[in-house]
Amino acid sequence: MKKIINAPADVVTDALRGMAAAHPDRLRVHLEPDFVTRVDAPVSDKVAVVSGGGSGHEPLHVGFVGSGMLDAAVPGAVFTSPTPDAVQAAVREVDGGAGTLLVVKNYTGDVLNFETAAELAEAEDIGVRTVVVQDDVAVRDSTNTAGRRGVGGTVLLEKIVGAAAARGHDLPSCHEIAERVSAGVRSMGMALTAPTVPHVGEPSFELADYEMEIGVGIHAEPGRERVELESADRIVRRLLEPILEDLPFREGDEVLLFTNSMGGTPPTELYLAHGVAERFLAERGVRVTRRLVGPYITSLEMQGMSFTLLKLDDELRQLWDAPVSTPALTW
Amino acid sequence: MKKIINAPADVVTDALRGMAAAHPDRLRVHLEPDFVTRVDAPVSDKVAVVSGGGSGHEPLHVGFVGSGMLDAAVPGAVFTSPTPDAVQAAVREVDGGAGTLLVVKNYTGDVLNFETAAELAEAEDIGVRTVVVQDDVAVRDSTNTAGRRGVGGTVLLEKIVGAAAARGHDLPSCHEIAERVSAGVRSMGMALTAPTVPHVGEPSFELADYEMEIGVGIHAEPGRERVELESADRIVRRLLEPILEDLPFREGDEVLLFTNSMGGTPPTELYLAHGVAERFLAERGVRVTRRLVGPYITSLEMQGMSFTLLKLDDELRQLWDAPVSTPALTW
Repeated sequence: MKKIINAPADVVTDALRGMAAAHPDRLRVHLEPDFVTRVDAPVSDKVAVVSGGGSGHEPLHVGFVGSGMLDAAVPGAVFTSPTPDAVQAAVREVDGGAGTLLVVKNYTGDVLNFETAAELAEAEDIGVRTVVVQDDVAVRDSTNTAGRRGVGGTVLLEKIVGAAAARGHDLPSCHEIAERVSAGVRSMGMALTAPTVPHVGEPSFELADYEMEIGVGIHAEPGRERVELESADRIVRRLLEPILEDLPFREGDEVLLFTNSMGGTPPTELYLAHGVAERFLAERGVRVTRRLVGPYITSLEMQGMSFTLLKLDDELRQLWDAPVSTPALTW
Repeated sequence: MKKIINAPADVVTDALRGMAAAHPDRLRVHLEPDFVTRVDAPVSDKVAVVSGGGSGHEPLHVGFVGSGMLDAAVPGAVFTSPTPDAVQAAVREVDGGAGTLLVVKNYTGDVLNFETAAELAEAEDIGVRTVVVQDDVAVRDSTNTAGRRGVGGTVLLEKIVGAAAARGHDLPSCHEIAERVSAGVRSMGMALTAPTVPHVGEPSFELADYEMEIGVGIHAEPGRERVELESADRIVRRLLEPILEDLPFREGDEVLLFTNSMGGTPPTELYLAHGVAERFLAERGVRVTRRLVGPYITSLEMQGMSFTLLKLDDELRQLWDAPVSTPALTW
């Protein structure tokens, strides 16, 4: 295992210490239980947006804490759900009296632990609503998941609902917007290499030099199929066709195209794939009017990528365009 | 070779097409010769800041084109200097009448080609000054370099001199500021794995599973030594001690600490190393008042990292803090 770390068991805590040192003007980092809040939390009378999940997908979620996006993020151990008490502590810290929206990726552990945390928070008279993101069209009922996995759509949802909360939408309205994003977003990914979890010390799966995994999950869960490496043109088609089939994208629909690196894929390859995807969608009459390109939801050092398409309407587009200021996403 | 590409020879052009599609509101992408300008270039009466070099280090330089940073970037083939005519064409496109500052990393091909481009531009009555960045303390007279290599300091210099130009500094003043940054910046890097150049198809060097390269260059040039993998604490010390020895950093000095991923190193490891570095510097009385953490000058998919320290004064700090809006750096 080749990593720049000290003790494998301390990786998440040590990384959080580094985040605290790097962003003293933006973030407050709490340890035991581990969670990260924006430095000015709680923001009075604003709906708090809180997310979390296993570490190893950075910048998701800790890099998205800040004005216009998340009030708090709760990182678990690598690829492991955070505990309910950590989520509860984060909610208690950031709730500004207008309630809290929990953004949860659909993995069984996350869903259960956030559910328990919501009950604990409600017992303290904090209003809580939850949205579960399940945008991965690759497979159903995967490792540790009932239904579809939550992946890239989470990034877009956190940005958009964070903007709604910043604009003063109340909890039911934020929840409705989050559900609308969730209903209109679809993703699919692929991998060229496997990630290595620090406390495991070995790659999560084996791929031959000539193979790629189509439909891989962000915890290296198996995808739809393992096939021989192909050109970027064919890879893009393999990912976008199932997305277009799944949502009723129609000629003239307006979408946001998010081209995501799984971590180890460099910008040249990612932009190259993005360009191919734009041409593919244009040929099918899908109008891409907003874009995000970069490593925003990753799987440690895994080489690979994913596409996410979100159907936009006027309100979602305006919320996407609204200002955001976080370590990993700012405009 | 595992990459998401079509023909290896077309990687740079295909990636530029993707950048054009991804950032229509920010960038204008020119092909044959290849260069990228801010969408509103030329900006009248502002000094133009132009950089460039071999591709494969993204986001450097193309991702730094935009208001408050570069007016144009000229990407060569992967790890290969751009040609003088491409640089000349970019300068002609963005010069707004106040002259152009060329930012060049110290590699023999880059220095020669930018020198020729400067002569060609001057023959067209464009005022040109050049700064050559040579901040890598690891080695002297490396592969394709006389003197020290230009690495991470380039990112900081482009941000700071871009801000000076945006504020209306004239060409001699921009050049003086650039030389001040160059004089006060030092870097050193390391690698856990080798990158693979697309048109070569094989890793640039071989490292055993238990080895790392200390002092590696961003084109995978050899460093100072190849040693057994160590803890993050020891790696940080191996990189920062030579930097501190080289510049007269003294107790009480104010510095910017830039913790850079070479591409394949994920955020957890990078933040972890950043935290260790902050403690190391604090123990030595060096005051870190500004930080940058992320993959900003990379070597394709290479796993590894580098540190850059820049001595700050009031003016440099204010220029660092000034607004910037580019695909890869915005605040």
